[in-house]
Amino acid sequence: MRLTQTLIPTLREAPQDAEIPSHKLMMRAGLIMKLGGGLYTFLPAGLKALRKVEKIVREEMDRAGALEVLMPALQPREIWEQSGRYTVLKDAMFKIKDRQQRDMVLGPTHEEVITDLVSRQINSYRQLPKTFYQIQTKFRDEIRPRFGLMRAKEFSMKDAYSFDVSWEAADVSYQAMYDAYVRIFKRCGLRTKVVEADTGAMGGNFSHEFMVLADSGEDGIVECESCSYAANLERAERMTPKTETTTTDKAPEIVATPGKRTIDEVSAFLKLAPHDLIKTLIYVADGKPVAVLVPGDRDVNEHKLARALGGIPVQLADDATIVQVTGAPVGFAGPVGLKIPIYADSGLKTPRVSATGANAADAHLVNVLSGRDFQVAEYFDLVIAREGDSCPRCGTRMREKRGIEVGHVFKLGTKYSKAFDAGFLDAAGNRQIIVMGCYGIGVTRTLQAVIEQSYDENGIIWPISIAPYQVSVVVPNTGHAESVKVAEEIIQKLEAQGIDVLFDDRDERPGVKFKDADLMGLPIRAVISERSLAEGKVEVKRRTEKEKNMIPVSDAVTFIENIIRGELS
Amino acid sequence: MRLTQTLIPTLREAPQDAEIPSHKLMMRAGLIMKLGGGLYTFLPAGLKALRKVEKIVREEMDRAGALEVLMPALQPREIWEQSGRYTVLKDAMFKIKDRQQRDMVLGPTHEEVITDLVSRQINSYRQLPKTFYQIQTKFRDEIRPRFGLMRAKEFSMKDAYSFDVSWEAADVSYQAMYDAYVRIFKRCGLRTKVVEADTGAMGGNFSHEFMVLADSGEDGIVECESCSYAANLERAERMTPKTETTTTDKAPEIVATPGKRTIDEVSAFLKLAPHDLIKTLIYVADGKPVAVLVPGDRDVNEHKLARALGGIPVQLADDATIVQVTGAPVGFAGPVGLKIPIYADSGLKTPRVSATGANAADAHLVNVLSGRDFQVAEYFDLVIAREGDSCPRCGTRMREKRGIEVGHVFKLGTKYSKAFDAGFLDAAGNRQIIVMGCYGIGVTRTLQAVIEQSYDENGIIWPISIAPYQVSVVVPNTGHAESVKVAEEIIQKLEAQGIDVLFDDRDERPGVKFKDADLMGLPIRAVISERSLAEGKVEVKRRTEKEKNMIPVSDAVTFIENIIRGELS
Repeated sequence: MRLTQTLIPTLREAPQDAEIPSHKLMMRAGLIMKLGGGLYTFLPAGLKALRKVEKIVREEMDRAGALEVLMPALQPREIWEQSGRYTVLKDAMFKIKDRQQRDMVLGPTHEEVITDLVSRQINSYRQLPKTFYQIQTKFRDEIRPRFGLMRAKEFSMKDAYSFDVSWEAADVSYQAMYDAYVRIFKRCGLRTKVVEADTGAMGGNFSHEFMVLADSGEDGIVECESCSYAANLERAERMTPKTETTTTDKAPEIVATPGKRTIDEVSAFLKLAPHDLIKTLIYVADGKPVAVLVPGDRDVNEHKLARALGGIPVQLADDATIVQVTGAPVGFAGPVGLKIPIYADSGLKTPRVSATGANAADAHLVNVLSGRDFQVAEYFDLVIAREGDSCPRCGTRMREKRGIEVGHVFKLGTKYSKAFDAGFLDAAGNRQIIVMGCYGIGVTRTLQAVIEQSYDENGIIWPISIAPYQVSVVVPNTGHAESVKVAEEIIQKLEAQGIDVLFDDRDERPGVKFKDADLMGLPIRAVISERSLAEGKVEVKRRTEKEKNMIPVSDAVTFIENIIRGELS
Repeated sequence: MRLTQTLIPTLREAPQDAEIPSHKLMMRAGLIMKLGGGLYTFLPAGLKALRKVEKIVREEMDRAGALEVLMPALQPREIWEQSGRYTVLKDAMFKIKDRQQRDMVLGPTHEEVITDLVSRQINSYRQLPKTFYQIQTKFRDEIRPRFGLMRAKEFSMKDAYSFDVSWEAADVSYQAMYDAYVRIFKRCGLRTKVVEADTGAMGGNFSHEFMVLADSGEDGIVECESCSYAANLERAERMTPKTETTTTDKAPEIVATPGKRTIDEVSAFLKLAPHDLIKTLIYVADGKPVAVLVPGDRDVNEHKLARALGGIPVQLADDATIVQVTGAPVGFAGPVGLKIPIYADSGLKTPRVSATGANAADAHLVNVLSGRDFQVAEYFDLVIAREGDSCPRCGTRMREKRGIEVGHVFKLGTKYSKAFDAGFLDAAGNRQIIVMGCYGIGVTRTLQAVIEQSYDENGIIWPISIAPYQVSVVVPNTGHAESVKVAEEIIQKLEAQGIDVLFDDRDERPGVKFKDADLMGLPIRAVISERSLAEGKVEVKRRTEKEKNMIPVSDAVTFIENIIRGELS
């Protein structure tokens, strides 16, 4: 392709609203163009790269035995009511009324549609297992779309759904998708970290996220410095910390703490370290108030709290409830004397002399001892894990990282198959319920994540597998007929081998062409100049290397082919 | 692919709401499944066929030099205001408010997005011409979705937009797309008829539709029985009919016609042929009332009327306006004595003694002569053409047909480039406005149109180019190991050649398998049975032929390959 015949509008400066490197580079390299908040047009080179990602995804899904389908984005409200997710996901979904004033949604995911389909089309164990997938445009009413394709209102996703006769069989399907994901990201040139994750609104039993580690990532992760344990912060556990027991003979004593509500304020005022305070939070769990205690320097992980209490919905109590339960204004809650169930983080299990709120305005208690002054109903791991916590598996120190979620696999279980009565007759003729899994890859996000992980100060560094063009051909002086002729011959031969070549045929200075070639990040650059041809040679350079190879003209095509074949094999 | 490993749920009976053959067959052959009104999921075999259509479209667009892009479906209202089409297309578009209560639409077409893009990225004649295309999901709030994919709320379309330096250059781009369309439909196995068409809400100068002739088509067409003239009824012209002059000395005479309002009522009451009556309609053209006269047996073509009056909006007057203009209730309008401009169809140019409304309640006039009793401002071709009219080019009789519009090419001119200020600097450094064309193919509709044109009483007859599988392999008795072994060997060899094969490995009676093979309409059927193998042969039959070929096992693969190659070359 000649550069003058396509449209790759490179920019010297990234637009103001591009915050992270990959977003800046996608804009600067002329891959995408913004239409509105969270809405981007794929320009020709950007789309070429996207199609290559899609092709890899499709090949690996097919290889794993998944069947491609295509489901509507526009969906009737009723099926979302049937799964109970209309309310849960309502704010994230774009809602539409059609001419007949019927409620429709733009589905951000397709569990409802596919399970409804399966419930109608599958009825025998002979038809199972089945995994369906689609690569489809999704819509999400993001509060704050940002980072280009990372968090967009419209994006491309590969979603897949597995249907099995049993929980064990579902594990096999899950593993097949997991393995396919590993291959997909590897082929896209991405280094991913697999972490345990929360199942959230999706429901289900367990899940893994495929994370691309990057400082700009929106997800927090902890990973063990020794073993393979890694988890999303929503999910991450920690080993119960070893704490020294301390004790006292003194009874709890009320201390006036006028206007001191936060841990920081109280700890400074009482001259105690934050971890010597107990943070007391009042939650409403399944409609009933409970107290939750964590060390003063930690925060409650509500996902873990909800799971600890049996998977029921939990939310922070409102001010009125807190006043009613503690008898004090917000900011002075403490466990001593509370008449509601008290749950505490396992970090508090070892009895220690602590300070807590006094359940009275402008007052705290010191010399408080658990077991003596208040009783905990049950201890769980309830805090958000963080750098320095101990690995729940091996006890080694864990570190914190940021990540971009590019893939997510869920063992769903029977949540949707029950809701849509998706069952089957087993070999004995008994009706059973189907066990499901679901699996997503953010296709457009994956494309951008590759850049976030692979660039330098000069621009993008594409892996050969998904580069819009694998080869960039530069003729510094397009006025030199022999250079153009040799370039065109080489290009023709490369294209005949199915290699995508971009020929910079612009009437520009060589410096501009080299700068743009680096910015666009095409993996292999061939320069054909009067000088190189005087030696009968072509300069071939990889984007990842400094070294320039001077290759005889007659060998150039084979040399380039070998680089590409070596990389893709 | 083994039939048991995919999902092709064939049906004996089509669902009640499937009205036309292609819709019935798509449902019966397990290609699509309904989610809601106008919303369909593509099942694996249906999607395979759709992808093949997309591939043909993409190859021919690329070959024509068009650049693939991908634009958002979700679009801000503002760009539709800028083109002035928000009001025009409002009812056809799905409208959305996002969280911030901003108005968005799901764009049923992309002139606004692409012209805005071009206005920002193109500024020199050196960057022109350019044609962009995309294959993308479109949404339309259909009043009455029906006929399966023919008129759906969500569908796949290929839309393309050309940008040129001049009207002449735009004709070249138009022709390139026109030629690509001819190739695309031919490769899909479709016989299309190209007809002149109205530009409608799209605006622009002229356009052609690619029609698939079918009784179920929603579009009316007339075509000349002799020359190549053909046009959509909205557009179709006719040669002015030759009519005998008649005259009378009698003055117009009022006849009481109590309650007789329609042409049929009046003609029966007065014992006159409908064409001896003049039908008088009051229109409001650009805000002012005008009278429009057509022969009593014809209907006004409002598209032609609007064009005749200079491209202004026209609409039938409301009752109050009619009463005000004619002094009579609706149903008794006539040209005699009217004080507003009178336009008449060219079929009325020859003076004839006629009957008309009397502009008085329950009264008509007879013995009316144009020129003597009323004056016509101007004559135009104003009626809807029909079977038996004369071709506007050669005068031969025309016939009427029904068609399915699968493609539409428009010479747009400067409507959008002006609205979005899409200009360029010419070689002399002067700023000029870009001249545009736009080009659409209903991709999902094309897929179904192929079936509407190619089926028999047993099912679909796929052309090899877009068949989900080119070959169906049937082993009547899957208990016969040798049959299965030979079948698998043949399949493996065919698949290694990139041929899609469906192996009916179900434990079903041979009759069921043969019936389903015919219903699915796969182009080539290979039957491997105990009986055929006894002769060392395989039975190969084309879906389009009765003849069965008994081919030696060792030649079967080559025989099938040759059929496929012959068809695709």
